Amino acid sequence: MTVLGLGDMGSALVRALLKAGYPTTVWNRTADKAKPLVAEGATHATTVAEAVAASRLVIACLFDYKSVTDVLDTAGDALTGRVLVNLTNGTPGQAREFAGRYDVDYLDGGIMAVPPMIGTPAAFVFYSGSRSAYDTNKQVLEAFGESLYVGTDAGFAALHDIGLLSGMYGMFAGGLHALALVTSAGVPATTFAPLLKRYITSMAGYVDGMAEQIDKQDYTINVTSNIAMQSAGYANLMLSAEEVGISPELLAPLAPLMARRVADGHGHEDIGGVVELLKKGKK
Amino acid sequence: MTVLGLGDMGSALVRALLKAGYPTTVWNRTADKAKPLVAEGATHATTVAEAVAASRLVIACLFDYKSVTDVLDTAGDALTGRVLVNLTNGTPGQAREFAGRYDVDYLDGGIMAVPPMIGTPAAFVFYSGSRSAYDTNKQVLEAFGESLYVGTDAGFAALHDIGLLSGMYGMFAGGLHALALVTSAGVPATTFAPLLKRYITSMAGYVDGMAEQIDKQDYTINVTSNIAMQSAGYANLMLSAEEVGISPELLAPLAPLMARRVADGHGHEDIGGVVELLKKGKK
Repeated sequence: MTVLGLGDMGSALVRALLKAGYPTTVWNRTADKAKPLVAEGATHATTVAEAVAASRLVIACLFDYKSVTDVLDTAGDALTGRVLVNLTNGTPGQAREFAGRYDVDYLDGGIMAVPPMIGTPAAFVFYSGSRSAYDTNKQVLEAFGESLYVGTDAGFAALHDIGLLSGMYGMFAGGLHALALVTSAGVPATTFAPLLKRYITSMAGYVDGMAEQIDKQDYTINVTSNIAMQSAGYANLMLSAEEVGISPELLAPLAPLMARRVADGHGHEDIGGVVELLKKGKK
Repeated sequence: MTVLGLGDMGSALVRALLKAGYPTTVWNRTADKAKPLVAEGATHATTVAEAVAASRLVIACLFDYKSVTDVLDTAGDALTGRVLVNLTNGTPGQAREFAGRYDVDYLDGGIMAVPPMIGTPAAFVFYSGSRSAYDTNKQVLEAFGESLYVGTDAGFAALHDIGLLSGMYGMFAGGLHALALVTSAGVPATTFAPLLKRYITSMAGYVDGMAEQIDKQDYTINVTSNIAMQSAGYANLMLSAEEVGISPELLAPLAPLMARRVADGHGHEDIGGVVELLKKGKK
């Protein structure tokens, strides 16, 4: 295997391959990053062409898609016909545009883990693009963690990755707001956090109901509390933030979206209908 | 027991009391709401004073705190010395202000459930205010669901209630954004939802680490990924929303907050430090 890019994530990938017993060739723009990995059994290539020529499976983990192009453009013909797995962070559009650039069997990946998690069961990686590239190399790739192939569209791995991170950052934003609120009123964050974790976990199931509403474009099903009531109750959230003097900016944008759904005659429906407004773009 | 207010929630409370075998007197501004409950065994009082006089424990579940005051002001001296449990929705400040208004043993409550959940193990209710009122009536109150007393400050029940809802709505906002994103790119919401639910659940544990940072005001502990890296990666979330044409408005506010922490020299710390900015109020 060849790994291009030896930042924290690239180095973690190399270590996982070595641990799983795969001979691994490494390359990095600044060669010193290769040293500890060579001491652990990796082979150092001094040029990209040499690194690429060393293995049928080439894994790129660089700063961004532009870096990948800059690096691979120096490989000449060495890349032709190889399997290229690109684990560099980017958007679905960047992945799709990149997919056709080289004469390779192309697989794009989105890593749902930080470097210390690589090689443990806690890591998982989305792959999309060439099905054959995935099937042939699945066993090697699972040295990194659990893997999930999500479609031939090269952009789908990044789409799933970004989708999950979006959900996570919404939860983090809610958590940061909640912890700012309660600590401003004198409740220790560590006292409140177990309640918050339990509540978020128990309410996470609501995304299933929302998902069904969205796919059917019918927001009258799975209604636990209608959006008119939720919108009215949300005023207390905003007012409580004001009372303790914290900024409501992380949670504020949901209020006008709910109010618009109610104003548009959807007050008896569920909050899932907010997706319709997001899809219409910024008002 | 007496219950004032027979909306969906008040009626659910009455039914839970009757089911648990407690004689219950009911009052509502419009008397017709009492009829089905009387058929189930409740006693109807035609005035607030009569309703209040009927029981040592008086539970109010009305539209807002102003409604509670309007209603109880008509009770005359009947309320004196009774236990008043107010389960009406409001803010911590409203609860605190209300707590001293009547000569009663006062308990404020925050219900974490929708009406159909009342009386099931899925419901739970925060209480704060008079410890003796809670201890003496705990058994009756647990007819509604699990109960948790969170302090003598009458505002703490609402504070915990609003805190959990804030966390939940952050998660919902992230979920709505994520589902808008993936469905705009052609992935069914119901295909993506199980992945999202699993990821949110697995990441909910991060609030424990954030909470420890916040209580210690030290955002260099529990750092999984520093805020400089998270802030840089967040740009891909915003760009991905733009690519598929959905509005980023629900997740956008976190970006400048992270950028400010980085600009202020906290780039090596964790995202928990955003709480410091929220506490400084709106920029």
